[in-house]
Amino acid sequence: MLTDIEIAQQAKLRLIKDVASDIDINEDELEFYGKYKAKLSDELSERVSKNKDGKLVLVTAINPTPAGEGKTTTSAGLGQAMAKIGKKAIIALREPSLGPVFGIKGGAAGGGYSQVLPMEEINLHFTGDMHAITSANNLLCAMLDNHMQQGNVLGIDPRRILFKRCLDMNDRALRNVVIGLGGKVNGVPREDGFIITVASEVMAILCLANDISDLKKRLGNILVAYTYDGNPVFCKDIKADGAMTALLKDALKPNLVQTLEGTPAIMHGGPFANIAHGCNSVRATKLALKLGDYCITEAGFGSDLGAEKFLDIKCRYAGIAPSCIVIVATCRALKYNGGVPKTEVSEPNLDALKDGIVNLGVHIDNMNKYGVPVVVAINRFYTDSDEELKYIEDYCHQRGAEFALSDVFCEGGNGGVDLAKKVVEACEKPSDFKLLYDNDLTIKEKMNRIATEIYGADKVNYTPQAEKALKDVVALGGDKLPVCVAKTQYSLSDNPALLGAPKGFDITVRDVRISNGAGFVVVYTGNIMTMPGLPKVPAANNIDVDKNNVISGLF
Amino acid sequence: MLTDIEIAQQAKLRLIKDVASDIDINEDELEFYGKYKAKLSDELSERVSKNKDGKLVLVTAINPTPAGEGKTTTSAGLGQAMAKIGKKAIIALREPSLGPVFGIKGGAAGGGYSQVLPMEEINLHFTGDMHAITSANNLLCAMLDNHMQQGNVLGIDPRRILFKRCLDMNDRALRNVVIGLGGKVNGVPREDGFIITVASEVMAILCLANDISDLKKRLGNILVAYTYDGNPVFCKDIKADGAMTALLKDALKPNLVQTLEGTPAIMHGGPFANIAHGCNSVRATKLALKLGDYCITEAGFGSDLGAEKFLDIKCRYAGIAPSCIVIVATCRALKYNGGVPKTEVSEPNLDALKDGIVNLGVHIDNMNKYGVPVVVAINRFYTDSDEELKYIEDYCHQRGAEFALSDVFCEGGNGGVDLAKKVVEACEKPSDFKLLYDNDLTIKEKMNRIATEIYGADKVNYTPQAEKALKDVVALGGDKLPVCVAKTQYSLSDNPALLGAPKGFDITVRDVRISNGAGFVVVYTGNIMTMPGLPKVPAANNIDVDKNNVISGLF
Repeated sequence: MLTDIEIAQQAKLRLIKDVASDIDINEDELEFYGKYKAKLSDELSERVSKNKDGKLVLVTAINPTPAGEGKTTTSAGLGQAMAKIGKKAIIALREPSLGPVFGIKGGAAGGGYSQVLPMEEINLHFTGDMHAITSANNLLCAMLDNHMQQGNVLGIDPRRILFKRCLDMNDRALRNVVIGLGGKVNGVPREDGFIITVASEVMAILCLANDISDLKKRLGNILVAYTYDGNPVFCKDIKADGAMTALLKDALKPNLVQTLEGTPAIMHGGPFANIAHGCNSVRATKLALKLGDYCITEAGFGSDLGAEKFLDIKCRYAGIAPSCIVIVATCRALKYNGGVPKTEVSEPNLDALKDGIVNLGVHIDNMNKYGVPVVVAINRFYTDSDEELKYIEDYCHQRGAEFALSDVFCEGGNGGVDLAKKVVEACEKPSDFKLLYDNDLTIKEKMNRIATEIYGADKVNYTPQAEKALKDVVALGGDKLPVCVAKTQYSLSDNPALLGAPKGFDITVRDVRISNGAGFVVVYTGNIMTMPGLPKVPAANNIDVDKNNVISGLF
Repeated sequence: MLTDIEIAQQAKLRLIKDVASDIDINEDELEFYGKYKAKLSDELSERVSKNKDGKLVLVTAINPTPAGEGKTTTSAGLGQAMAKIGKKAIIALREPSLGPVFGIKGGAAGGGYSQVLPMEEINLHFTGDMHAITSANNLLCAMLDNHMQQGNVLGIDPRRILFKRCLDMNDRALRNVVIGLGGKVNGVPREDGFIITVASEVMAILCLANDISDLKKRLGNILVAYTYDGNPVFCKDIKADGAMTALLKDALKPNLVQTLEGTPAIMHGGPFANIAHGCNSVRATKLALKLGDYCITEAGFGSDLGAEKFLDIKCRYAGIAPSCIVIVATCRALKYNGGVPKTEVSEPNLDALKDGIVNLGVHIDNMNKYGVPVVVAINRFYTDSDEELKYIEDYCHQRGAEFALSDVFCEGGNGGVDLAKKVVEACEKPSDFKLLYDNDLTIKEKMNRIATEIYGADKVNYTPQAEKALKDVVALGGDKLPVCVAKTQYSLSDNPALLGAPKGFDITVRDVRISNGAGFVVVYTGNIMTMPGLPKVPAANNIDVDKNNVISGLF
């Protein structure tokens, strides 16, 4: 079989204006970025605002393993399959970050015959949204340090600056830095650190903002520091909110692209689910609901991270609810969860599957708690045995979930017809969506609910630093905000080594921060870091461009 | 009169495909970024490669003063005026940096009725070229630090890393930093610093590269560090050149926009002239020469910086030569050079003008040394007296330069008709372009030639650090490369306080670095910094966006 990039490069793309036309978007409602990408104008959002909403389908997954699950591939394939059964579906995904593209994970535009195109452009600069967020984030930082340098009228305490610089890059050497060295003309020395752009509160705000005025208001409300007197300093105090909004004006508009089979795909916003809220923008999802009969969206990593945040943060704020949740898994990944090393997951091993399927079980149970019908999509691999697949099917049915085999990687939309049918059926079932917690609960109560009911923890412990940080957050009114947990994606617990369905563990909270503009409280667990590092052999080593401008090595 | 941004926002833009059509570019040779911006394809460059070259007009200026000169305004206005006298002219400019946009200088797309549009987009993200350069630069840095973290097979000495991270931002607190703090998992601690993107060697390479293969080769040749054994480490040793090329693939293509009067303008590349080589890309200039009868391009700051580098670096490498050099000045700025404070330059003051005009005199004499006809363009201001203007005109004629009054700021192309006619006449004069120095001279000999013949210095002194650095540069074969001087723009000397035509001064070189991929040696003089800072009240404070997405405060 061809590589992902070879398939993408051989694809005959439709003009994006034609893709748009399929969902009744006029050419003058598009802002073109080349022939195959476009931003969707505010006028379009306005025009369709009275349309009836389509059905919202959330695609999530078991905990990720090195064996691979293919969640984005399934989302793209499901969208393609919907067209095969005559349904008007729109895919709503996140934009990739350059960090994983050059690091270990590779791109984030699906794979095989279920990809979103143009794959290289989406994985590199796309329409510049990430860069706009990076610039806006760093403008605030430059203005903050400049304020201190130029007399510090607000009395900002350089030891209590919370808002960090960012880059869209895996760059561990920037996690902990000292800046402002070199004497009086070169700034105020202080400790600082860089996070990856997808973890920036600016990204979260872009994803949650309703419109340009809401965006500006939220940016202004970012808590950036405290004064020597202990008073909070917000972005608007630094007067950065207007210029940041100018930088984000175009980034706020959703991007339209297409799948390999020409299905419309809206990609917009890209927070990671382990260190941020993990779902695409509210504007993009709402627009897709207005334009299609089905909006297929996904949330990052396993359902413990992305889906939980999608449901408890994004749905809460946006006033939307899924009609169906798809949980993606592979037979190989379930065996890996049962203790089989990556090199042996291709061998039939029913015992390991039985041990590992508990991970899937927890994700099904968790999603059931939200009152939404669940469909398990097994992303088929040719090494899967019939016996193994039958076992998974029965297991799902026993847990009250529908089951579908999917082979969208090899067969595109045709490989997802059964899944599409099951999803359509599930969307017709009665659904009684309920949030996991009320905002009226305290942060600790909310965190306890998530940790015990979703992660399966016994209890939550707080380090002294976290207790102190929580007090500051409560003092700012953060107690009534939803919680966004930063946690490893590899385990339901906060220890990446615990696979399957771990029991008898505690969650350790080491820090708590308010994202006052985004409107949630970030709770940091375990050793999760907001700036990833590159592996020993980064993916970047193998990326190249030939003299005809053809890129190789992207995957 | 309206502000620049109000004029820009009220302008009725032509569709960029129509602007392109005027210069015989087909729609399928454009890659659209919205309706009013497009990248020019490699196929276009290929198709017109056999066309006859038009005439090259270089616009430069006296040393910049707070009174303002209006070089980009003159370039845009001259292009508009060319159309008024029936000439097919294309403007080739640099792209603005976000640093000045949010700092003190404001945007860089001209002013009044001689602007390049869409003004806001050009001044903010444009087509993302700056962001691509920032990303490519910082990917190399992340891979370099990752190499040291992951075993350091090459034996890179963390005390001898030359290549710095960059941001397109004025952020003085990042000039001197310590990175890699926080223990073993967080990188190798070392001193580092950020430069502004426009000073990055990646920017210089983008501007000098002939094609994608040349780009990749030059990126691979960037000197990034030395090993513990004292051996040079290049970008290609880190294996970053392929991925960097992938990031820069689209940025390498020139951008087409238009003036307020619909004149085609190619904006591409944006190195500053005080800390880098200060001219737009070779590809853009060559393409403009193939597409128009006249290519009007500009080089940054005064002729001592941008023009000298345009002529001795860019023309040398690109094999091109100007047919005419325009030196922009204002009566106000000349009086400022004569010692009049900024608040009083509106008053007629012939004595101050006589004292200050020596600055213009030096720039005329210097440009004459290159054997190209010179036209002085006085950017007219309503406070200029007839007597003052007559004095300047006579002075120019005595120096062997043509003289033209220009009022393109208030009148657009109509205000530049006289200038355009003089430029056309000058282009028909015999021209005998010669470079200031041979590459065979040593670095010190070349630097001496520039310092004495262009700056008017007595001699050049080298600090011990510079002497040591020069030895390293020579050892790498840098002695035969052209010199790119980093120097204050405010004076012909390396002391920003010395206005007019300073005499009896030395130039002090404090560091020497090889830009091995770009192909020149950067000589750092005085206190010039490669990362600017924000002023007490940054321009960003006043930038805003209203609920209808209209930006204000950009200038």
